[in-house]
Amino acid sequence: MILKRLSRKTFDMEKNLYIVIVGCGRLGSLLANQLSQKGHSVLVIDPSEDAFNNLSPGFSGFRIPGDASQLTILKEAKLEKADVFFATTQSDNVNLMVAQVARKLFQVPQVLARIEDPKREDVFNRLGIETICPTSVGAELFLLSVASGRSLRENR
Amino acid sequence: MILKRLSRKTFDMEKNLYIVIVGCGRLGSLLANQLSQKGHSVLVIDPSEDAFNNLSPGFSGFRIPGDASQLTILKEAKLEKADVFFATTQSDNVNLMVAQVARKLFQVPQVLARIEDPKREDVFNRLGIETICPTSVGAELFLLSVASGRSLRENR
Repeated sequence: MILKRLSRKTFDMEKNLYIVIVGCGRLGSLLANQLSQKGHSVLVIDPSEDAFNNLSPGFSGFRIPGDASQLTILKEAKLEKADVFFATTQSDNVNLMVAQVARKLFQVPQVLARIEDPKREDVFNRLGIETICPTSVGAELFLLSVASGRSLRENR
Repeated sequence: MILKRLSRKTFDMEKNLYIVIVGCGRLGSLLANQLSQKGHSVLVIDPSEDAFNNLSPGFSGFRIPGDASQLTILKEAKLEKADVFFATTQSDNVNLMVAQVARKLFQVPQVLARIEDPKREDVFNRLGIETICPTSVGAELFLLSVASGRSLRENR
Protein backbone atom coordinates (compact mmCIF):
# COMPACT_ATOMS: atom_id res chain seq x y z
CA MET A 1 0.00 0.00 0.00
CA ILE A 2 2.88 2.32 0.89
CA LEU A 3 4.52 1.49 -2.44
CA LYS A 4 1.38 2.34 -4.41
CA ARG A 5 0.84 5.56 -2.52
CA LEU A 6 4.36 6.86 -3.00
CA SER A 7 4.91 5.71 -6.55
CA ARG A 8 2.29 8.20 -7.71
CA LYS A 9 4.28 11.13 -6.40
CA THR A 10 6.77 13.02 -8.52
CA PHE A 11 10.38 12.97 -7.37
CA ASP A 12 11.15 16.67 -7.53
CA MET A 13 13.73 17.99 -5.10
CA GLU A 14 15.18 21.02 -6.84
CA LYS A 15 14.57 23.50 -4.04
CA ASN A 16 17.21 23.72 -1.33
CA LEU A 17 15.77 22.44 1.94
CA TYR A 18 17.13 22.39 5.49
CA ILE A 19 16.95 18.77 6.61
CA VAL A 20 17.75 17.51 10.12
CA ILE A 21 18.44 13.79 10.53
CA VAL A 22 18.65 12.07 13.92
CA GLY A 23 20.76 8.91 13.78
CA CYS A 24 23.80 8.36 11.56
CA GLY A 25 23.62 4.58 11.17
CA ARG A 26 23.11 2.83 7.85
CA LEU A 27 19.77 4.48 7.09
CA GLY A 28 20.56 7.95 8.46
CA SER A 29 23.95 8.20 6.76
CA LEU A 30 22.57 6.90 3.45
CA LEU A 31 19.92 9.64 3.54
CA ALA A 32 22.40 12.32 4.66
CA ASN A 33 24.84 11.46 1.86
CA GLN A 34 22.21 11.43 -0.86
CA LEU A 35 20.38 14.58 0.28
CA SER A 36 23.64 16.50 0.71
CA GLN A 37 24.72 15.40 -2.76
CA LYS A 38 21.44 16.76 -4.15
CA GLY A 39 22.34 20.19 -2.76
CA HIS A 40 20.19 20.28 0.38
CA SER A 41 21.52 21.63 3.69
CA VAL A 42 21.75 18.56 5.92
CA LEU A 43 22.47 18.37 9.65
CA VAL A 44 23.02 14.99 11.32
CA ILE A 45 22.80 14.30 15.07
CA ASP A 46 24.21 11.14 16.66
CA PRO A 47 25.52 10.45 20.18
CA SER A 48 28.45 8.46 18.75
CA GLU A 49 31.11 10.44 16.91
CA ASP A 50 32.20 7.17 15.26
CA ALA A 51 28.83 7.03 13.51
CA PHE A 52 29.84 10.07 11.46
CA ASN A 53 32.41 7.85 9.73
CA ASN A 54 29.43 6.51 7.76
CA LEU A 55 29.20 9.87 6.01
CA SER A 56 30.85 9.98 2.60
CA PRO A 57 33.84 12.28 1.92
CA GLY A 58 31.54 14.35 -0.29
CA PHE A 59 29.10 15.09 2.55
CA SER A 60 29.00 18.87 2.89
CA GLY A 61 26.51 19.13 5.77
CA PHE A 62 26.81 19.61 9.53
CA ARG A 63 27.35 17.11 12.36
CA ILE A 64 26.27 17.48 15.98
CA PRO A 65 27.53 14.78 18.36
CA GLY A 66 24.90 14.47 21.09
CA ASP A 67 21.64 13.08 22.40
CA ALA A 68 18.75 14.35 20.28
CA SER A 69 16.28 13.73 23.10
CA GLN A 70 17.79 16.76 24.87
CA LEU A 71 16.17 20.06 23.92
CA THR A 72 19.50 21.92 23.97
CA ILE A 73 20.78 19.71 21.17
CA LEU A 74 17.68 20.30 19.06
CA LYS A 75 17.94 24.05 19.68
CA GLU A 76 21.59 23.93 18.66
CA ALA A 77 20.40 22.25 15.46
CA LYS A 78 18.10 25.25 14.82
CA LEU A 79 15.15 22.92 14.47
CA GLU A 80 12.74 25.83 14.19
CA LYS A 81 14.23 26.54 10.76
CA ALA A 82 14.08 22.93 9.51
CA ASP A 83 11.91 22.03 6.53
CA VAL A 84 12.25 18.29 7.08
CA PHE A 85 13.03 16.15 10.14
CA PHE A 86 13.91 12.45 9.95
CA ALA A 87 14.19 10.23 13.05
CA THR A 88 16.18 7.20 11.89
CA THR A 89 17.71 5.62 15.01
CA GLN A 90 17.27 1.91 15.72
CA SER A 91 15.15 2.73 18.77
CA ASP A 92 11.44 3.17 18.12
CA ASN A 93 11.04 4.97 21.44
CA VAL A 94 13.75 7.53 20.68
CA ASN A 95 12.32 8.09 17.21
CA LEU A 96 8.80 8.60 18.55
CA MET A 97 9.96 11.06 21.20
CA VAL A 98 12.18 13.23 19.00
CA ALA A 99 9.66 13.19 16.14
CA GLN A 100 6.94 14.47 18.47
CA VAL A 101 9.22 17.21 19.81
CA ALA A 102 10.11 18.24 16.24
CA ARG A 103 6.47 18.30 15.20
CA LYS A 104 4.85 19.87 18.27
CA LEU A 105 7.50 22.10 19.87
CA PHE A 106 9.41 23.20 16.76
CA GLN A 107 6.57 22.95 14.19
CA VAL A 108 8.75 21.26 11.58
CA PRO A 109 6.41 20.90 8.58
CA GLN A 110 7.64 17.48 7.41
CA VAL A 111 8.42 14.90 10.11
CA LEU A 112 9.00 11.22 9.43
CA ALA A 113 10.12 8.46 11.79
CA ARG A 114 11.65 5.06 11.08
CA ILE A 115 9.87 2.30 12.94
CA GLU A 116 11.34 -1.15 13.52
CA ASP A 117 8.34 -2.97 14.96
CA PRO A 118 5.43 -2.91 12.49
CA LYS A 119 3.00 -3.53 15.38
CA ARG A 120 3.73 -0.04 16.77
CA GLU A 121 2.95 1.73 13.49
CA ASP A 122 -0.66 2.36 14.51
CA VAL A 123 0.38 3.97 17.82
CA PHE A 124 2.80 6.32 16.06
CA ASN A 125 0.17 7.32 13.51
CA ARG A 126 -2.43 7.99 16.21
CA LEU A 127 0.10 10.30 17.85
CA GLY A 128 0.32 12.19 14.56
CA ILE A 129 3.72 10.89 13.48
CA GLU A 130 4.14 9.53 9.97
CA THR A 131 6.30 6.41 9.82
CA ILE A 132 8.27 4.26 7.45
CA CYS A 133 8.91 0.67 8.47
CA PRO A 134 11.77 -0.82 6.41
CA THR A 135 10.82 -4.33 7.62
CA SER A 136 7.25 -4.03 6.32
CA VAL A 137 8.37 -2.53 3.02
CA GLY A 138 11.04 -5.23 2.66
CA ALA A 139 8.35 -7.86 3.33
CA GLU A 140 6.15 -6.40 0.59
CA LEU A 141 9.01 -6.81 -1.88
CA PHE A 142 9.64 -10.42 -0.78
CA LEU A 143 5.93 -11.16 -1.30
CA LEU A 144 5.96 -9.53 -4.74
CA SER A 145 8.95 -11.71 -5.66
CA VAL A 146 6.85 -14.82 -4.94
CA ALA A 147 4.43 -13.64 -7.60
CA SER A 148 7.18 -12.88 -10.09
CA GLY A 149 8.96 -16.17 -9.27
CA ARG A 150 5.82 -18.11 -9.97
CA SER A 151 5.50 -16.64 -13.44
CA LEU A 152 9.19 -17.37 -14.11
CA ARG A 153 8.63 -21.03 -13.24
CA GLU A 154 5.60 -21.27 -15.48
CA ASN A 155 7.56 -19.85 -18.42
CA ARG A 156 10.31 -22.47 -18.09
CA MET B 1 14.58 1.57 -9.02
CA ILE B 2 13.51 -1.56 -7.13
CA LEU B 3 10.13 0.02 -6.52
CA LYS B 4 9.60 0.81 -10.17
CA ARG B 5 10.67 -2.65 -11.29
CA LEU B 6 8.41 -4.51 -8.88
CA SER B 7 5.37 -2.26 -9.12
CA ARG B 8 4.91 -3.40 -12.71
CA LYS B 9 4.46 -7.03 -11.64
CA THR B 10 1.07 -8.52 -10.94
CA PHE B 11 0.49 -9.85 -7.46
CA ASP B 12 -0.90 -13.29 -8.30
CA MET B 13 -0.28 -16.03 -5.77
CA GLU B 14 -3.17 -18.42 -6.27
CA LYS B 15 -1.08 -21.58 -6.76
CA ASN B 16 0.03 -23.44 -3.63
CA LEU B 17 3.81 -23.17 -3.28
CA TYR B 18 6.26 -24.82 -0.90
CA ILE B 19 8.19 -21.96 0.71
CA VAL B 20 11.16 -22.37 3.06
CA ILE B 21 12.11 -19.38 5.22
CA VAL B 22 15.35 -19.20 7.22
CA GLY B 23 15.04 -16.83 10.18
CA CYS B 24 11.91 -16.24 12.24
CA GLY B 25 12.59 -12.67 13.39
CA ARG B 26 10.37 -9.71 12.47
CA LEU B 27 10.82 -10.09 8.72
CA GLY B 28 10.79 -13.91 8.55
CA SER B 29 7.74 -14.30 10.79
CA LEU B 30 5.84 -11.54 8.97
CA LEU B 31 6.43 -13.38 5.68
CA ALA B 32 5.62 -16.80 7.17
CA ASN B 33 2.35 -15.57 8.65
CA GLN B 34 1.19 -13.86 5.47
CA LEU B 35 2.22 -16.65 3.09
CA SER B 36 0.66 -19.32 5.31
CA GLN B 37 -2.55 -17.30 5.47
CA LYS B 38 -2.60 -17.19 1.67
CA GLY B 39 -2.65 -21.00 1.61
CA HIS B 40 0.99 -21.72 0.80
CA SER B 41 2.92 -24.51 2.56
CA VAL B 42 5.49 -22.69 4.67
CA LEU B 43 8.42 -24.12 6.65
CA VAL B 44 10.44 -21.87 8.97
CA ILE B 45 13.92 -22.62 10.32
CA ASP B 46 15.43 -20.77 13.28
CA PRO B 47 18.03 -21.79 15.89
CA SER B 48 15.97 -20.20 18.67
CA GLU B 49 12.71 -21.91 19.57
CA ASP B 50 11.59 -18.63 21.20
CA ALA B 51 11.64 -17.01 17.75
CA PHE B 52 8.68 -19.19 16.75
CA ASN B 53 6.58 -17.18 19.21
CA ASN B 54 6.56 -14.50 16.50
CA LEU B 55 4.33 -16.78 14.41
CA SER B 56 0.63 -15.98 14.64
CA PRO B 57 -1.83 -18.51 16.10
CA GLY B 58 -3.24 -18.97 12.58
CA PHE B 59 0.14 -20.10 11.16
CA SER B 60 -0.45 -23.58 9.76
CA GLY B 61 3.07 -24.31 8.49
CA PHE B 62 6.05 -26.22 9.85
CA ARG B 63 8.85 -25.20 12.23
CA ILE B 64 12.37 -26.65 12.40
CA PRO B 65 14.50 -25.45 15.32
CA GLY B 66 18.09 -25.57 14.13
CA ASP B 67 21.04 -24.04 12.30
CA ALA B 68 20.21 -23.66 8.61
CA SER B 69 23.88 -23.58 7.69
CA GLN B 70 23.98 -27.33 8.45
CA LEU B 71 23.10 -29.52 5.47
CA THR B 72 21.19 -32.00 7.64
CA ILE B 73 18.75 -29.27 8.62
CA LEU B 74 18.17 -28.24 5.00
CA LYS B 75 17.69 -31.90 4.01
CA GLU B 76 15.17 -32.29 6.84
CA ALA B 77 13.38 -29.26 5.38
CA LYS B 78 13.14 -31.15 2.04
CA LEU B 79 14.73 -28.22 0.28
CA GLU B 80 14.88 -30.13 -3.01
CA LYS B 81 11.08 -29.81 -3.17
CA ALA B 82 10.95 -26.08 -2.36
CA ASP B 83 9.57 -23.61 -4.90
CA VAL B 84 10.81 -20.58 -2.99
CA PHE B 85 13.62 -20.02 -0.46
CA PHE B 86 13.95 -16.86 1.64
CA ALA B 87 17.04 -16.12 3.77
CA THR B 88 15.88 -13.46 6.24
CA THR B 89 18.28 -13.62 9.22
CA GLN B 90 19.98 -10.45 10.51
CA SER B 91 23.36 -11.83 9.41
CA ASP B 92 24.34 -11.06 5.83
CA ASN B 93 26.95 -13.84 5.95
CA VAL B 94 24.46 -16.50 7.04
CA ASN B 95 21.97 -15.32 4.41
CA LEU B 96 24.58 -15.44 1.64
CA MET B 97 25.73 -18.93 2.62
CA VAL B 98 22.33 -20.58 2.95
CA ALA B 99 21.01 -18.83 -0.18
CA GLN B 100 23.93 -20.19 -2.21
CA VAL B 101 23.37 -23.70 -0.84
CA ALA B 102 19.66 -23.48 -1.67
CA ARG B 103 20.38 -22.26 -5.19
CA LYS B 104 23.38 -24.43 -6.13
CA LEU B 105 23.00 -27.68 -4.15
CA PHE B 106 19.21 -27.93 -3.99
CA GLN B 107 18.36 -26.05 -7.22
CA VAL B 108 15.54 -24.08 -5.58
CA PRO B 109 14.07 -22.05 -8.48
CA GLN B 110 13.36 -18.85 -6.54
CA VAL B 111 15.98 -17.76 -3.97
CA LEU B 112 16.02 -14.37 -2.30
CA ALA B 113 18.21 -13.07 0.53
CA ARG B 114 17.75 -10.14 2.88
CA ILE B 115 20.82 -7.95 3.04
CA GLU B 116 21.49 -5.44 5.81
CA ASP B 117 24.51 -3.65 4.42
CA PRO B 118 23.68 -2.03 1.05
CA LYS B 119 27.40 -1.98 0.19
CA ARG B 120 27.42 -5.80 -0.03
CA GLU B 121 24.53 -5.96 -2.50
CA ASP B 122 26.86 -6.03 -5.48
CA VAL B 123 28.85 -8.98 -4.07
CA PHE B 124 25.68 -11.00 -3.49
CA ASN B 125 24.44 -10.26 -7.00
CA ARG B 126 27.77 -11.26 -8.56
CA LEU B 127 27.48 -14.57 -6.71
CA GLY B 128 24.09 -15.07 -8.37
CA ILE B 129 21.96 -14.31 -5.31
CA GLU B 130 19.07 -11.87 -5.65
CA THR B 131 18.73 -9.57 -2.65
CA ILE B 132 16.33 -7.22 -0.96
CA CYS B 133 17.79 -4.55 1.30
CA PRO B 134 15.10 -3.13 3.62
CA THR B 135 17.43 -0.23 4.53
CA SER B 136 17.81 0.86 0.90
CA VAL B 137 14.12 0.49 0.18
CA GLY B 138 13.27 2.40 3.36
CA ALA B 139 15.69 5.13 2.28
CA GLU B 140 13.96 5.41 -1.10
CA LEU B 141 10.67 6.01 0.68
CA PHE B 142 12.20 8.67 2.96
CA LEU B 143 13.59 10.42 -0.11
CA LEU B 144 10.22 10.27 -1.87
CA SER B 145 8.63 11.83 1.21
CA VAL B 146 10.92 14.85 0.86
CA ALA B 147 9.42 15.43 -2.56
CA SER B 148 5.85 15.01 -1.32
CA GLY B 149 6.53 17.19 1.73
CA ARG B 150 7.78 19.98 -0.45
CA SER B 151 4.57 20.06 -2.44
CA LEU B 152 2.53 20.01 0.80
CA ARG B 153 4.38 23.10 1.99
CA GLU B 154 3.83 24.91 -1.26
CA ASN B 155 0.10 24.25 -1.12
CA ARG B 156 -0.26 25.77 2.35
